[in-house]
Amino acid sequence: MKRPALLALIVFAAVMALVLASSPPAGRQPVALLITGGTVVTMDGAGTVVPDGAVAIEGSRIVAVGPAEALEARYAARERIDARGQVIMPGLINTHTHAPMVLFRGLADDLALMDWLNQYIFPAEKAMVSPEFVRVGTRLAALEMIESGTTTYADMYYFEEEIARATRDAGLRAVLGQTIIRFPVADAATPEDGLARTEAFLIQWASDELVTPAVAPHAPYTLAPETLKATRALANRYRAPLLIHLAETRDEVGLVADQFSMTPAMFLDSLGLWNGPSLAAHGVWVDAADMEMLAERGVGMSHNPESNMKLASGTAPVLDWLAHGIHAGLGTDGAASNNDLDMFEAVRMAALLHKQASGDPRAMPARQALELATRGGASALGLEDRIGSLEAGKLADVITVSMTSARQTPLFDPLSHLVYVTRGTDVRNTVVHGRVLMRQGRTITLDRAAVIRDANAMAAKVRAAVTGQESR
Amino acid sequence: MKRPALLALIVFAAVMALVLASSPPAGRQPVALLITGGTVVTMDGAGTVVPDGAVAIEGSRIVAVGPAEALEARYAARERIDARGQVIMPGLINTHTHAPMVLFRGLADDLALMDWLNQYIFPAEKAMVSPEFVRVGTRLAALEMIESGTTTYADMYYFEEEIARATRDAGLRAVLGQTIIRFPVADAATPEDGLARTEAFLIQWASDELVTPAVAPHAPYTLAPETLKATRALANRYRAPLLIHLAETRDEVGLVADQFSMTPAMFLDSLGLWNGPSLAAHGVWVDAADMEMLAERGVGMSHNPESNMKLASGTAPVLDWLAHGIHAGLGTDGAASNNDLDMFEAVRMAALLHKQASGDPRAMPARQALELATRGGASALGLEDRIGSLEAGKLADVITVSMTSARQTPLFDPLSHLVYVTRGTDVRNTVVHGRVLMRQGRTITLDRAAVIRDANAMAAKVRAAVTGQESR
Repeated sequence: MKRPALLALIVFAAVMALVLASSPPAGRQPVALLITGGTVVTMDGAGTVVPDGAVAIEGSRIVAVGPAEALEARYAARERIDARGQVIMPGLINTHTHAPMVLFRGLADDLALMDWLNQYIFPAEKAMVSPEFVRVGTRLAALEMIESGTTTYADMYYFEEEIARATRDAGLRAVLGQTIIRFPVADAATPEDGLARTEAFLIQWASDELVTPAVAPHAPYTLAPETLKATRALANRYRAPLLIHLAETRDEVGLVADQFSMTPAMFLDSLGLWNGPSLAAHGVWVDAADMEMLAERGVGMSHNPESNMKLASGTAPVLDWLAHGIHAGLGTDGAASNNDLDMFEAVRMAALLHKQASGDPRAMPARQALELATRGGASALGLEDRIGSLEAGKLADVITVSMTSARQTPLFDPLSHLVYVTRGTDVRNTVVHGRVLMRQGRTITLDRAAVIRDANAMAAKVRAAVTGQESR
Repeated sequence: MKRPALLALIVFAAVMALVLASSPPAGRQPVALLITGGTVVTMDGAGTVVPDGAVAIEGSRIVAVGPAEALEARYAARERIDARGQVIMPGLINTHTHAPMVLFRGLADDLALMDWLNQYIFPAEKAMVSPEFVRVGTRLAALEMIESGTTTYADMYYFEEEIARATRDAGLRAVLGQTIIRFPVADAATPEDGLARTEAFLIQWASDELVTPAVAPHAPYTLAPETLKATRALANRYRAPLLIHLAETRDEVGLVADQFSMTPAMFLDSLGLWNGPSLAAHGVWVDAADMEMLAERGVGMSHNPESNMKLASGTAPVLDWLAHGIHAGLGTDGAASNNDLDMFEAVRMAALLHKQASGDPRAMPARQALELATRGGASALGLEDRIGSLEAGKLADVITVSMTSARQTPLFDPLSHLVYVTRGTDVRNTVVHGRVLMRQGRTITLDRAAVIRDANAMAAKVRAAVTGQESR
């Protein structure tokens, strides 16, 4: 290298060093948003927790995570969120729900599964499900999710394009599966119609930055083998993920065994259904061979503890899933069987349920339960390189959670509190893709009063449809 | 009857009819407090729910429960609570806790029981338990209970006279048991000291209108038979109830069987321990003969679903308790093993756990779960004639619960929502013995900031005691 070139390099290096080390406002790197002053629970692979920390965001990405003082010195933020007394953490990931079913929550409980379905849910769906119903329900679900700290969700329902629009407008991230099922349903008279609708949906939403369109064959026992194969082929043609219910009840295992002499998981494997990105919900009744196969195929699995308990479906062997190396996330299931979309409840329930079921108080410790709802869920949905933890370069899906209630006093360990004593109501700020959806408890992308009013109006029609009388 | 007398009677009746029918303020009966405009979930024997209802309170008692319009016409209230958009219901009854242990919440979780006790809880208690610790902890617990809708609680701890004072000052109702145990503890070197302390406590608090002092032998395996007998004798001498842990773990059953060849319940029965008002906490490992005997003796039982799950103690056969006619209530247990005192969580957990454990989605329906936390708890504590439901003549322990969150929209059935989607954070007003302890979310009897500050200061000492370093 010639001397002038070397000199120039030295000068350049010195200037760069000065720029990087300087802290006056003029020298700081501009960023869109700085969330600062709280305990950052990153949920990264090393379990990093930064006591008085901050997260810097530019555009849709996280630029830096670290001590507040260091980030304040390095970045000049156009917008700030004060998170003192709060935890700053990745947004929660709900890997299985049916968003519009919030409009059926509490309509009927405590019934045998088939009575519940046949007397309430199916008649209500038959009478009610329409693009408007789905839109109104999704907006209510989005409001609840934003307020309780869910930033990404996976959905299986009808008129999924309405769900996609409402989700994008609310600013949430989602993997949305258009349902395909054997019976005539509101948006498709036949499974063939369903496949055609799904294809149109995949094309229409192919390049959205928040919504990933998906194919959602309902379940192994509600579709013919040929249709199941067609759903996988369709998904792969458009590089879309596939979402399906799997082994939720003992009855399902019996039905599939009677017809095909296989477990539901193996039956689907025999059709090649797992040959591509897949998420299976419930997996309550999977055996060791199923789990080995599902892990090998890279199938993500969604554990729904509250729904499984409320419907008495059984206890999913989640500790065994994890021992087999399955990518596992948590879900709420639809609000008709939960009855809410609060992922903090799902986390706590997972932590308690697997201690009870295993008889071991060390099972499913707080960190592991919280991992299911963050990095685990991201991984189950194939999004682990983009979301699920607070790390520079990942998408900016961040929530802040208040830690100052009587119930959260004293605070020895934020992980323990997040799992055992925190509620969705403690969430104060919700950011998705770098956009603030809720600021200090106030939703920005949704008109709260209008969403609730529209939901109540629709609920009056639901009650009329089910009972023949108008609700309040 | 003579004509003048008859005339006088007719005039008197006409005047009375006018007085009763008139609604001008002057003609209305004065009452201290009218809680009005909400859906009244009375939890009475008939399951009465009054949609646009009200509760009238004078002194410490409920005067009337009914439609808001009727009560507004009949009563002139000096103070009013507007409960529109809310449920008005009896305050929740926590039948088993150790209030000051809120200062240990989240200190250590997810450990084997003996590690948890020996490495954390016992050293922390040895180092920390003092009158001041108990006072600071009880005030924090009282704040949490008032804010989350608990109006009566049963407690077993040390320095119970400090707990009694803090409870009375906070305005809560309680059955408070001074603990007697074989080992030296902070407030007694020997069980004999413990008995003497307890006797003084029973005398001192004999006639308090909020606090019922009680005798609390720790458990069948932590006291000698003679001491257990002495606790019953002491309780009966002062007509005080007795509180005890019973059959919480399999280990306990083994210990008692090894020594006495009986179940814990039968062992205690052989000592005459159930010969008087008694409340047994946990009862996870009771068999059919135990339950028959406990029902016959009228022993109240406290089910603690979250603690039993978190410590993996087993699943209490609560459906069998109820089938045997046992008076059953719900409890949180101490916050070190829960980790909070939110009775709405206990209710939801009971509803879900017994569906899961029985495999029947119809088990423990919403109303039954809520009954455990209200009339059931009252009955378990022998207070069913005074609290547990909203009925004229009962003591005025009333809460109001907001029902307008996204999570509670739409509202088809208030019972369902109270169990499946409501949190302690939804409670807005708490009234005990006719006194308003929290009004529209603002605590009146406790200085919130001071309580939290004192608790955090004490927690710093707890951390130092356990880890040798000060907490934040």
